[in-house]
Amino acid sequence: MTEFKLALIQLAVGASKVENVKNAVKFIKEAAGNGAKLVALPECFNSPYGTNYFGEYAESIPGPSTDSLSQAAKDNQVFLVGGSIPESENGKLYNTSTIFNPQGELIGKHRKVHLFDIDVPGKIRFQESEVLTAGNTLTMFNTPFCKVGVGICYDIRFAELAQIYTRRGCNLLIYPGAFNMTTGPAHWELLQRGRALDNQVYVATVSPARDEKASYVAWGHSTVVNPWGEVISTTEHQETIVYSDIDVEYAKQVRSMVPISTQRRDDLYKLQDVTKGNNS
Amino acid sequence: MTEFKLALIQLAVGASKVENVKNAVKFIKEAAGNGAKLVALPECFNSPYGTNYFGEYAESIPGPSTDSLSQAAKDNQVFLVGGSIPESENGKLYNTSTIFNPQGELIGKHRKVHLFDIDVPGKIRFQESEVLTAGNTLTMFNTPFCKVGVGICYDIRFAELAQIYTRRGCNLLIYPGAFNMTTGPAHWELLQRGRALDNQVYVATVSPARDEKASYVAWGHSTVVNPWGEVISTTEHQETIVYSDIDVEYAKQVRSMVPISTQRRDDLYKLQDVTKGNNS
Repeated sequence: MTEFKLALIQLAVGASKVENVKNAVKFIKEAAGNGAKLVALPECFNSPYGTNYFGEYAESIPGPSTDSLSQAAKDNQVFLVGGSIPESENGKLYNTSTIFNPQGELIGKHRKVHLFDIDVPGKIRFQESEVLTAGNTLTMFNTPFCKVGVGICYDIRFAELAQIYTRRGCNLLIYPGAFNMTTGPAHWELLQRGRALDNQVYVATVSPARDEKASYVAWGHSTVVNPWGEVISTTEHQETIVYSDIDVEYAKQVRSMVPISTQRRDDLYKLQDVTKGNNS
Repeated sequence: MTEFKLALIQLAVGASKVENVKNAVKFIKEAAGNGAKLVALPECFNSPYGTNYFGEYAESIPGPSTDSLSQAAKDNQVFLVGGSIPESENGKLYNTSTIFNPQGELIGKHRKVHLFDIDVPGKIRFQESEVLTAGNTLTMFNTPFCKVGVGICYDIRFAELAQIYTRRGCNLLIYPGAFNMTTGPAHWELLQRGRALDNQVYVATVSPARDEKASYVAWGHSTVVNPWGEVISTTEHQETIVYSDIDVEYAKQVRSMVPISTQRRDDLYKLQDVTKGNNS
Protein backbone atom coordinates (compact mmCIF):
# COMPACT_ATOMS: atom_id res chain seq x y z
CA MET A 1 0.00 0.00 0.00
CA THR A 2 1.47 3.35 -0.97
CA GLU A 3 -1.46 5.70 -0.33
CA PHE A 4 -2.74 6.65 3.07
CA LYS A 5 -4.37 9.47 4.97
CA LEU A 6 -2.29 11.64 7.28
CA ALA A 7 -3.88 13.80 10.00
CA LEU A 8 -2.20 16.74 11.73
CA ILE A 9 -3.86 17.83 14.94
CA GLN A 10 -3.48 21.55 15.46
CA LEU A 11 -4.27 21.36 19.16
CA ALA A 12 -5.22 24.26 21.42
CA VAL A 13 -2.85 23.82 24.32
CA GLY A 14 -3.77 25.28 27.72
CA ALA A 15 -2.45 25.28 31.26
CA SER A 16 -3.95 21.94 32.32
CA LYS A 17 -1.83 18.99 31.34
CA VAL A 18 -4.67 16.57 31.99
CA GLU A 19 -7.00 18.54 29.74
CA ASN A 20 -4.37 18.87 27.02
CA VAL A 21 -3.82 15.12 26.91
CA LYS A 22 -7.55 14.40 27.04
CA ASN A 23 -8.15 16.80 24.20
CA ALA A 24 -5.36 15.24 22.13
CA VAL A 25 -6.83 11.77 22.65
CA LYS A 26 -10.26 13.03 21.57
CA PHE A 27 -8.82 14.43 18.32
CA ILE A 28 -6.81 11.26 17.64
CA LYS A 29 -10.07 9.33 17.82
CA GLU A 30 -11.76 11.79 15.47
CA ALA A 31 -8.89 11.62 12.97
CA ALA A 32 -8.89 7.82 13.00
CA GLY A 33 -12.65 7.85 12.54
CA ASN A 34 -12.11 9.89 9.42
CA GLY A 35 -9.70 7.33 8.02
CA ALA A 36 -6.30 8.62 9.12
CA LYS A 37 -3.66 5.91 9.43
CA LEU A 38 -0.94 8.20 10.69
CA VAL A 39 -1.73 10.98 13.17
CA ALA A 40 0.63 13.69 14.41
CA LEU A 41 0.36 16.08 17.36
CA PRO A 42 2.13 19.44 17.71
CA GLU A 43 5.31 20.29 19.60
CA CYS A 44 4.75 20.65 23.34
CA PHE A 45 1.18 19.35 23.14
CA ASN A 46 0.72 18.73 26.86
CA SER A 47 2.34 21.92 28.18
CA PRO A 48 2.49 25.61 27.37
CA TYR A 49 5.65 26.35 25.40
CA GLY A 50 8.28 28.27 27.38
CA THR A 51 11.47 27.66 29.30
CA ASN A 52 9.63 28.46 32.54
CA TYR A 53 7.09 25.67 31.91
CA PHE A 54 9.30 22.78 30.81
CA GLY A 55 10.48 21.76 34.30
CA GLU A 56 7.01 21.93 35.83
CA TYR A 57 5.32 19.90 33.09
CA ALA A 58 8.12 17.41 32.47
CA GLU A 59 7.54 13.66 32.80
CA SER A 60 9.66 10.61 32.33
CA ILE A 61 8.99 8.33 29.39
CA PRO A 62 7.02 6.16 29.84
CA GLY A 63 4.82 8.37 31.99
CA PRO A 64 1.19 9.46 32.20
CA SER A 65 1.15 11.48 28.97
CA THR A 66 2.88 8.89 26.83
CA ASP A 67 0.81 6.09 28.41
CA SER A 68 -2.25 7.93 27.12
CA LEU A 69 -0.70 8.23 23.68
CA SER A 70 0.13 4.54 23.61
CA GLN A 71 -3.44 3.67 24.54
CA ALA A 72 -4.85 6.10 21.95
CA ALA A 73 -2.69 4.62 19.19
CA LYS A 74 -3.86 1.13 20.12
CA ASP A 75 -7.51 2.03 20.61
CA ASN A 76 -7.64 3.78 17.26
CA GLN A 77 -5.26 1.53 15.34
CA VAL A 78 -3.06 4.34 14.08
CA PHE A 79 0.59 5.22 13.90
CA LEU A 80 1.00 8.21 16.19
CA VAL A 81 3.73 10.85 16.21
CA GLY A 82 3.05 12.27 19.64
CA GLY A 83 4.17 15.81 18.95
CA SER A 84 6.52 16.50 21.80
CA ILE A 85 6.49 16.83 25.57
CA PRO A 86 9.00 18.12 28.08
CA GLU A 87 10.81 14.98 29.19
CA SER A 88 12.85 14.59 32.36
CA GLU A 89 15.52 11.96 32.79
CA ASN A 90 18.38 11.86 35.27
CA GLY A 91 17.92 15.51 36.18
CA LYS A 92 17.98 16.69 32.58
CA LEU A 93 15.14 18.05 30.48
CA TYR A 94 14.52 17.30 26.80
CA ASN A 95 11.97 18.30 24.17
CA THR A 96 10.91 14.83 23.10
CA SER A 97 8.62 13.23 20.55
CA THR A 98 7.36 9.69 21.11
CA ILE A 99 6.14 7.51 18.28
CA PHE A 100 3.70 4.62 18.67
CA ASN A 101 2.50 1.90 16.32
CA PRO A 102 -1.12 0.66 16.13
CA GLN A 103 -0.28 -1.94 18.78
CA GLY A 104 0.51 0.91 21.16
CA GLU A 105 4.21 0.08 21.23
CA LEU A 106 6.78 2.84 21.48
CA ILE A 107 8.72 2.53 18.21
CA GLY A 108 10.68 5.78 18.25
CA LYS A 109 11.72 8.62 20.48
CA HIS A 110 13.13 11.85 19.11
CA ARG A 111 14.78 14.35 21.39
CA LYS A 112 15.06 17.68 19.56
CA VAL A 113 18.61 17.73 18.30
CA HIS A 114 18.86 21.43 17.42
CA LEU A 115 17.80 23.57 20.35
CA PHE A 116 15.93 26.76 19.59
CA ASP A 117 18.33 29.54 20.52
CA ILE A 118 17.64 32.69 18.55
CA ASP A 119 17.71 36.42 19.19
CA VAL A 120 15.95 38.73 16.75
CA PRO A 121 16.25 42.13 18.48
CA GLY A 122 12.91 43.71 19.26
CA LYS A 123 11.03 40.69 17.96
CA ILE A 124 11.83 37.36 19.57
CA ARG A 125 14.51 36.02 21.88
CA PHE A 126 14.31 32.42 23.01
CA GLN A 127 16.99 30.14 24.41
CA GLU A 128 15.87 26.58 24.92
CA SER A 129 19.41 25.69 25.92
CA GLU A 130 18.93 27.58 29.17
CA VAL A 131 16.94 24.61 30.44
CA LEU A 132 16.93 21.86 27.81
CA THR A 133 19.51 19.33 26.71
CA ALA A 134 19.71 18.40 23.03
CA GLY A 135 19.16 14.87 21.79
CA ASN A 136 21.87 12.97 19.95
CA THR A 137 20.04 10.67 17.59
CA LEU A 138 18.24 10.69 14.27
CA THR A 139 14.72 9.29 14.39
CA MET A 140 13.03 7.33 11.64
CA PHE A 141 10.30 4.72 11.77
CA ASN A 142 8.71 2.27 9.37
CA THR A 143 5.05 1.94 8.51
CA PRO A 144 3.39 -0.32 5.93
CA PHE A 145 2.98 2.83 3.80
CA CYS A 146 6.40 4.46 3.92
CA LYS A 147 9.38 5.25 6.09
CA VAL A 148 9.02 8.47 8.09
CA GLY A 149 11.64 10.86 9.50
CA VAL A 150 10.92 13.02 12.54
CA GLY A 151 12.32 16.40 13.59
CA ILE A 152 11.06 18.96 16.07
CA CYS A 153 10.53 22.60 15.10
CA TYR A 154 13.98 24.25 14.88
CA ASP A 155 15.34 20.94 13.51
CA ILE A 156 13.67 21.89 10.22
CA ARG A 157 16.16 24.73 9.69
CA PHE A 158 18.97 22.23 9.23
CA ALA A 159 18.90 20.98 5.66
CA GLU A 160 21.28 18.13 6.40
CA LEU A 161 18.86 16.37 8.74
CA ALA A 162 16.24 16.15 5.99
CA GLN A 163 18.89 15.12 3.48
CA ILE A 164 20.03 12.24 5.70
CA TYR A 165 16.46 11.10 6.37
CA THR A 166 15.70 11.08 2.67
CA ARG A 167 18.82 9.20 1.75
CA ARG A 168 17.91 6.59 4.32
CA GLY A 169 14.66 6.05 2.46
CA CYS A 170 12.08 8.28 4.12
CA ASN A 171 9.27 9.51 1.87
CA LEU A 172 7.62 11.65 4.54
CA LEU A 173 9.16 14.00 7.09
CA ILE A 174 7.08 15.18 10.03
CA TYR A 175 8.05 18.21 12.08
CA PRO A 176 5.90 19.00 15.11
CA GLY A 177 6.80 22.64 15.64
CA ALA A 178 5.76 25.92 17.17
CA PHE A 179 7.06 28.80 15.11
CA ASN A 180 6.16 32.27 16.36
CA MET A 181 4.68 35.47 14.97
CA THR A 182 8.09 36.61 13.64
CA THR A 183 9.59 33.45 12.19
CA GLY A 184 6.21 31.92 11.31
CA PRO A 185 5.13 34.26 8.53
CA ALA A 186 8.73 34.63 7.33
CA HIS A 187 9.95 31.04 7.27
CA TRP A 188 7.49 28.30 8.31
CA GLU A 189 6.11 27.48 4.86
CA LEU A 190 9.30 28.36 2.99
CA LEU A 191 11.42 25.95 5.02
CA GLN A 192 8.87 23.21 4.59
CA ARG A 193 8.50 23.71 0.84
CA GLY A 194 12.26 23.85 0.46
CA ARG A 195 12.82 20.59 2.32
CA ALA A 196 10.09 18.93 0.24
CA LEU A 197 11.42 20.14 -3.12
CA ASP A 198 15.10 19.57 -2.38
CA ASN A 199 14.48 16.04 -1.15
CA GLN A 200 11.43 15.19 -3.24
CA VAL A 201 9.49 13.93 -0.24
CA TYR A 202 6.29 14.88 1.57
CA VAL A 203 6.83 17.23 4.49
CA ALA A 204 4.29 17.87 7.25
CA THR A 205 4.47 20.49 9.99
CA VAL A 206 2.17 20.39 13.03
CA SER A 207 1.76 23.48 15.17
CA PRO A 208 -0.31 24.14 18.28
CA ALA A 209 -3.30 26.41 17.66
CA ARG A 210 -2.60 30.07 18.34
CA ASP A 211 -3.23 31.45 21.81
CA GLU A 212 -2.90 35.22 21.68
CA LYS A 213 -2.70 35.38 25.48
CA ALA A 214 0.20 32.94 25.79
CA SER A 215 3.72 34.15 26.55
CA TYR A 216 4.82 32.44 23.33
CA VAL A 217 2.29 32.93 20.53
CA ALA A 218 2.38 30.10 18.00
CA TRP A 219 1.99 30.73 14.29
CA GLY A 220 -0.31 27.77 13.60
CA HIS A 221 -0.62 26.94 9.89
CA SER A 222 -0.05 23.20 10.14
CA THR A 223 0.69 22.20 6.57
CA VAL A 224 1.47 19.35 4.21
CA VAL A 225 3.72 19.90 1.17
CA ASN A 226 4.14 17.37 -1.62
CA PRO A 227 7.42 16.30 -3.29
CA TRP A 228 6.93 18.87 -6.08
CA GLY A 229 7.05 21.61 -3.43
CA GLU A 230 3.32 22.40 -3.47
CA VAL A 231 1.21 23.05 -0.38
CA ILE A 232 -1.50 20.39 -0.63
CA SER A 233 -3.21 20.94 2.70
CA THR A 234 -3.04 23.72 5.24
CA THR A 235 -5.04 25.84 7.67
CA GLU A 236 -5.00 29.11 9.56
CA HIS A 237 -4.34 29.26 13.29
CA GLN A 238 -7.42 27.83 15.03
CA GLU A 239 -7.72 24.39 16.59
CA THR A 240 -8.45 21.90 13.81
CA ILE A 241 -7.35 18.74 12.06
CA VAL A 242 -5.51 19.01 8.75
CA TYR A 243 -5.93 15.93 6.55
CA SER A 244 -3.89 14.98 3.55
CA ASP A 245 -3.57 11.99 1.26
CA ILE A 246 0.03 10.87 0.96
CA ASP A 247 0.98 8.94 -2.17
CA VAL A 248 4.44 7.45 -2.10
CA GLU A 249 4.20 6.56 -5.78
CA TYR A 250 3.97 10.26 -6.58
CA ALA A 251 7.23 10.89 -4.74
CA LYS A 252 8.84 8.23 -6.91
CA GLN A 253 7.40 9.85 -10.04
CA VAL A 254 8.87 13.22 -9.10
CA ARG A 255 12.25 11.63 -8.49
CA SER A 256 12.05 10.03 -11.88
CA MET A 257 11.04 13.23 -13.71
CA VAL A 258 13.69 15.42 -12.08
CA PRO A 259 16.26 12.84 -10.99
CA ILE A 260 18.44 14.99 -8.74
CA SER A 261 18.92 12.12 -6.30
CA THR A 262 20.97 10.27 -8.91
CA GLN A 263 22.61 13.37 -10.39
CA ARG A 264 24.49 14.56 -7.32
CA ARG A 265 28.22 15.08 -7.73
CA ASP A 266 29.88 12.95 -5.11
CA ASP A 267 33.22 13.92 -6.59
CA LEU A 268 32.61 17.52 -5.46
CA TYR A 269 30.63 17.21 -2.22
CA LYS A 270 29.38 14.42 -0.05
CA LEU A 271 27.02 14.43 2.89
CA GLN A 272 28.36 12.18 5.58
CA ASP A 273 25.85 10.29 7.71
CA VAL A 274 28.03 10.33 10.81
CA THR A 275 25.84 8.15 13.02
CA LYS A 276 25.78 5.46 10.36
CA GLY A 277 29.47 5.88 9.77
CA ASN A 278 29.17 6.14 6.03
CA ASN A 279 28.81 8.63 3.25
CA SER A 280 25.37 8.92 1.74
CA MET B 1 33.06 48.33 1.81
CA THR B 2 30.19 45.94 2.44
CA GLU B 3 27.41 47.55 0.40
CA PHE B 4 27.24 47.59 -3.36
CA LYS B 5 24.82 47.58 -6.26
CA LEU B 6 24.23 44.38 -8.20
CA ALA B 7 22.68 44.40 -11.68
CA LEU B 8 21.07 41.40 -13.39
CA ILE B 9 20.62 41.76 -17.13
CA GLN B 10 17.53 39.91 -18.30
CA LEU B 11 18.66 39.90 -21.92
CA ALA B 12 16.48 39.17 -24.96
CA VAL B 13 18.52 36.54 -26.77
CA GLY B 14 18.01 36.07 -30.50
CA ALA B 15 19.50 34.11 -33.36
CA SER B 16 22.41 36.47 -34.09
CA LYS B 17 25.38 35.88 -31.85
CA VAL B 18 26.93 39.20 -32.83
CA GLU B 19 23.74 41.06 -31.93
CA ASN B 20 23.36 39.18 -28.65
CA VAL B 21 26.87 40.11 -27.57
CA LYS B 22 26.46 43.71 -28.72
CA ASN B 23 23.22 43.97 -26.81
CA ALA B 24 24.78 42.52 -23.68
CA VAL B 25 27.63 45.02 -23.86
CA LYS B 26 25.15 47.86 -24.24
CA PHE B 27 23.28 46.78 -21.09
CA ILE B 28 26.50 46.30 -19.12
CA LYS B 29 27.33 49.93 -19.89
CA GLU B 30 23.87 51.03 -18.82
CA ALA B 31 24.09 49.08 -15.56
CA ALA B 32 27.51 50.49 -14.75
CA GLY B 33 26.24 53.97 -15.54
CA ASN B 34 23.56 53.39 -12.92
CA GLY B 35 26.13 52.50 -10.30
CA ALA B 36 26.33 48.71 -10.51
CA LYS B 37 29.66 47.30 -9.35
CA LEU B 38 28.81 43.70 -10.16
CA VAL B 39 26.85 42.82 -13.30
CA ALA B 40 25.51 39.42 -14.29
CA LEU B 41 24.21 38.10 -17.62
CA PRO B 42 21.84 35.17 -18.13
CA GLU B 43 22.61 31.58 -19.04
CA CYS B 44 23.31 31.12 -22.74
CA PHE B 45 23.35 34.85 -23.41
CA ASN B 46 24.96 34.68 -26.85
CA SER B 47 22.99 31.75 -28.25
CA PRO B 48 19.46 30.39 -28.27
CA TYR B 49 19.10 27.71 -25.63
CA GLY B 50 18.77 24.20 -27.05
CA THR B 51 20.89 21.12 -27.67
CA ASN B 52 20.65 21.75 -31.42
CA TYR B 53 22.21 25.23 -31.03
CA PHE B 54 25.12 24.57 -28.68
CA GLY B 55 27.49 23.14 -31.29
CA GLU B 56 26.79 25.84 -33.84
CA TYR B 57 27.25 28.73 -31.40
CA ALA B 58 30.13 27.27 -29.38
CA GLU B 59 33.43 29.13 -29.05
CA SER B 60 36.67 28.48 -27.28
CA ILE B 61 37.58 30.58 -24.26
CA PRO B 62 39.08 33.06 -24.83
CA GLY B 63 37.13 33.73 -28.01
CA PRO B 64 35.15 36.55 -29.60
CA SER B 65 32.29 36.56 -27.08
CA THR B 66 34.45 36.44 -23.98
CA ASP B 67 36.86 39.00 -25.48
CA SER B 68 33.89 41.34 -25.68
CA LEU B 69 32.98 40.60 -22.06
CA SER B 70 36.52 41.25 -20.93
CA GLN B 71 36.53 44.57 -22.73
CA ALA B 72 33.12 45.51 -21.33
CA ALA B 73 34.21 44.74 -17.76
CA LYS B 74 37.30 46.89 -18.24
CA ASP B 75 35.55 49.73 -20.06
CA ASN B 76 32.89 49.94 -17.37
CA GLN B 77 35.01 49.07 -14.36
CA VAL B 78 32.73 46.30 -13.11
CA PHE B 79 32.96 42.73 -11.98
CA LEU B 80 31.13 40.73 -14.62
CA VAL B 81 29.57 37.29 -14.35
CA GLY B 82 29.20 36.60 -18.02
CA GLY B 83 26.08 34.44 -17.84
CA SER B 84 27.08 31.42 -19.86
CA ILE B 85 27.97 30.49 -23.41
CA PRO B 86 28.34 27.19 -25.21
CA GLU B 87 32.09 26.49 -24.98
CA SER B 88 34.06 24.10 -27.16
CA GLU B 89 37.36 22.58 -26.13
CA ASN B 90 39.08 19.49 -27.49
CA GLY B 91 35.95 18.37 -29.28
CA LYS B 92 33.75 18.65 -26.20
CA LEU B 93 31.01 21.15 -25.46
CA TYR B 94 30.33 22.82 -22.11
CA ASN B 95 27.84 25.32 -20.70
CA THR B 96 30.30 27.81 -19.30
CA SER B 97 30.25 31.03 -17.32
CA THR B 98 33.24 33.37 -17.45
CA ILE B 99 33.96 35.91 -14.74
CA PHE B 100 35.94 39.10 -15.26
CA ASN B 101 37.30 41.73 -12.88
CA PRO B 102 37.28 45.50 -13.57
CA GLN B 103 40.70 45.11 -15.19
CA GLY B 104 39.15 42.82 -17.77
CA GLU B 105 41.01 39.79 -16.46
CA LEU B 106 39.36 36.37 -16.46
CA ILE B 107 39.17 35.47 -12.77
CA GLY B 108 36.85 32.49 -12.91
CA LYS B 109 35.30 29.98 -15.25
CA HIS B 110 32.38 27.81 -14.25
CA ARG B 111 31.35 24.88 -16.37
CA LYS B 112 27.85 23.80 -15.34
CA VAL B 113 28.46 20.85 -13.04
CA HIS B 114 24.92 19.44 -12.97
CA LEU B 115 23.62 18.94 -16.49
CA PHE B 116 19.94 19.60 -17.08
CA ASP B 117 18.45 16.19 -17.79
CA ILE B 118 14.78 16.06 -16.89
CA ASP B 119 11.66 14.44 -18.27
CA VAL B 120 8.28 15.70 -17.10
CA PRO B 121 5.86 13.76 -19.35
CA GLY B 122 3.69 15.99 -21.51
CA LYS B 123 5.45 19.13 -20.23
CA ILE B 124 9.18 19.31 -20.74
CA ARG B 125 11.91 16.89 -21.71
CA PHE B 126 15.45 18.18 -22.01
CA GLN B 127 18.75 16.29 -21.96
CA GLU B 128 21.79 18.54 -21.98
CA SER B 129 23.96 15.47 -21.58
CA GLU B 130 23.14 14.46 -25.15
CA VAL B 131 25.63 17.09 -26.31
CA LEU B 132 27.26 18.72 -23.27
CA THR B 133 29.96 17.58 -20.89
CA ALA B 134 29.70 18.58 -17.22
CA GLY B 135 32.30 20.68 -15.46
CA ASN B 136 34.25 19.35 -12.50
CA THR B 137 35.02 22.38 -10.39
CA LEU B 138 33.40 24.71 -7.89
CA THR B 139 33.66 28.38 -8.81
CA MET B 140 34.05 31.26 -6.38
CA PHE B 141 35.62 34.66 -6.80
CA ASN B 142 36.61 37.54 -4.56
CA THR B 143 35.53 41.14 -4.86
CA PRO B 144 36.26 44.07 -2.52
CA PHE B 145 32.63 43.72 -1.37
CA CYS B 146 32.22 40.01 -0.75
CA LYS B 147 33.07 36.55 -1.97
CA VAL B 148 30.71 35.22 -4.64
CA GLY B 149 29.79 31.65 -5.64
CA VAL B 150 28.58 30.82 -9.15
CA GLY B 151 26.30 28.06 -10.41
CA ILE B 152 24.42 27.68 -13.67
CA CYS B 153 20.67 27.01 -13.74
CA TYR B 154 20.14 23.34 -12.80
CA ASP B 155 23.09 23.65 -10.37
CA ILE B 156 20.68 25.52 -8.07
CA ARG B 157 18.70 22.33 -7.43
CA PHE B 158 21.63 20.84 -5.56
CA ALA B 159 21.61 22.17 -2.02
CA GLU B 160 25.10 20.93 -1.32
CA LEU B 161 26.72 23.25 -3.85
CA ALA B 162 25.28 26.30 -2.10
CA GLN B 163 26.19 24.86 1.29
CA ILE B 164 29.81 24.42 0.23
CA TYR B 165 30.01 27.91 -1.26
CA THR B 166 28.62 29.42 1.91
CA ARG B 167 30.95 27.51 4.18
CA ARG B 168 33.83 28.75 2.08
CA GLY B 169 32.78 32.30 2.89
CA CYS B 170 30.52 33.41 0.04
CA ASN B 171 27.86 35.97 0.96
CA LEU B 172 26.31 36.07 -2.51
CA LEU B 173 25.45 33.24 -4.88
CA ILE B 174 24.70 34.00 -8.52
CA TYR B 175 22.91 31.55 -10.77
CA PRO B 176 22.52 32.52 -14.42
CA GLY B 177 19.69 30.23 -15.45
CA ALA B 178 16.90 29.59 -17.90
CA PHE B 179 14.04 27.78 -16.23
CA ASN B 180 11.06 27.02 -18.43
CA MET B 181 7.29 27.46 -18.32
CA THR B 182 6.86 24.26 -16.26
CA THR B 183 9.69 24.42 -13.74
CA GLY B 184 9.79 28.22 -13.68
CA PRO B 185 6.47 28.93 -11.98
CA ALA B 186 6.82 25.82 -9.82
CA HIS B 187 10.39 26.09 -8.57
CA TRP B 188 12.46 29.10 -9.69
CA GLU B 189 11.70 31.42 -6.78
CA LEU B 190 11.25 28.62 -4.23
CA LEU B 191 14.70 27.17 -4.90
CA GLN B 192 16.28 30.59 -4.71
CA ARG B 193 14.52 31.57 -1.48
CA GLY B 194 15.38 28.20 0.03
CA ARG B 195 19.09 28.53 -0.78
CA ALA B 196 19.11 32.06 0.64
CA LEU B 197 17.35 31.15 3.89
CA ASP B 198 19.19 27.88 4.51
CA ASN B 199 22.57 29.49 3.96
CA GLN B 200 21.77 33.03 5.10
CA VAL B 201 23.28 34.59 1.99
CA TYR B 202 22.04 36.71 -0.90
CA VAL B 203 21.01 34.69 -3.94
CA ALA B 204 20.57 36.12 -7.44
CA THR B 205 19.12 34.38 -10.48
CA VAL B 206 19.50 35.81 -14.00
CA SER B 207 17.27 34.56 -16.80
CA PRO B 208 17.06 35.49 -20.46
CA ALA B 209 13.92 37.45 -21.35
CA ARG B 210 11.06 35.29 -22.55
CA ASP B 211 10.74 34.58 -26.26
CA GLU B 212 7.39 32.88 -26.87
CA LYS B 213 8.53 31.81 -30.36
CA ALA B 214 11.67 30.05 -29.17
CA SER B 215 11.88 26.27 -29.01
CA TYR B 216 12.72 26.63 -25.32
CA VAL B 217 10.63 29.33 -23.66
CA ALA B 218 12.41 30.88 -20.66
CA TRP B 219 10.53 31.82 -17.50
CA GLY B 220 12.30 35.15 -16.96
CA HIS B 221 11.77 36.56 -13.44
CA SER B 222 15.40 37.39 -12.66
CA THR B 223 15.38 37.88 -8.92
CA VAL B 224 17.43 38.79 -5.87
CA VAL B 225 16.63 37.23 -2.47
CA ASN B 226 18.14 38.40 0.81
CA PRO B 227 19.55 36.23 3.63
CA TRP B 228 16.20 36.33 5.47
CA GLY B 229 14.63 34.61 2.44
CA GLU B 230 12.78 37.67 1.13
CA VAL B 231 12.56 38.63 -2.54
CA ILE B 232 14.07 42.13 -2.58
CA SER B 233 14.14 42.73 -6.31
CA THR B 234 12.48 40.97 -9.22
CA THR B 235 10.75 41.44 -12.56
CA GLU B 236 8.40 39.77 -15.02
CA HIS B 237 9.66 38.30 -18.28
CA GLN B 238 10.58 41.20 -20.54
CA GLU B 239 14.09 42.42 -21.31
CA THR B 240 15.23 44.63 -18.45
CA ILE B 241 17.84 45.21 -15.79
CA VAL B 242 17.10 44.18 -12.19
CA TYR B 243 19.05 46.21 -9.64
CA SER B 244 19.55 45.40 -6.00
CA ASP B 245 21.62 46.73 -3.13
CA ILE B 246 23.59 43.99 -1.46
CA ASP B 247 24.61 44.56 2.16
CA VAL B 248 27.01 41.99 3.52
CA GLU B 249 26.57 43.34 7.04
CA TYR B 250 22.93 42.34 6.88
CA ALA B 251 23.91 38.77 6.08
CA LYS B 252 26.08 38.79 9.18
CA GLN B 253 23.20 40.15 11.27
CA VAL B 254 20.90 37.37 10.12
CA ARG B 255 23.55 34.78 10.96
CA SER B 256 23.85 36.31 14.40
CA MET B 257 20.08 36.42 15.05
CA VAL B 258 19.41 32.86 13.90
CA PRO B 259 22.85 31.27 14.29
CA ILE B 260 22.28 28.01 12.43
CA SER B 261 25.77 28.12 10.96
CA THR B 262 27.24 27.53 14.44
CA GLN B 263 24.46 25.23 15.65
CA ARG B 264 24.92 22.42 13.14
CA ARG B 265 25.43 18.94 14.59
CA ASP B 266 28.69 17.67 13.15
CA ASP B 267 28.33 14.62 15.38
CA LEU B 268 25.27 13.57 13.35
CA TYR B 269 25.98 14.75 9.80
CA LYS B 270 28.82 16.44 8.02
CA LEU B 271 29.05 17.92 4.56
CA GLN B 272 32.32 16.96 2.99
CA ASP B 273 33.94 19.47 0.65
CA VAL B 274 35.55 16.81 -1.53
CA THR B 275 37.57 19.10 -3.78
CA LYS B 276 39.11 20.76 -0.76
CA GLY B 277 39.68 17.41 0.85
CA ASN B 278 38.15 18.42 4.14
CA ASN B 279 34.92 18.39 6.06
CA SER B 280 33.15 21.69 6.31
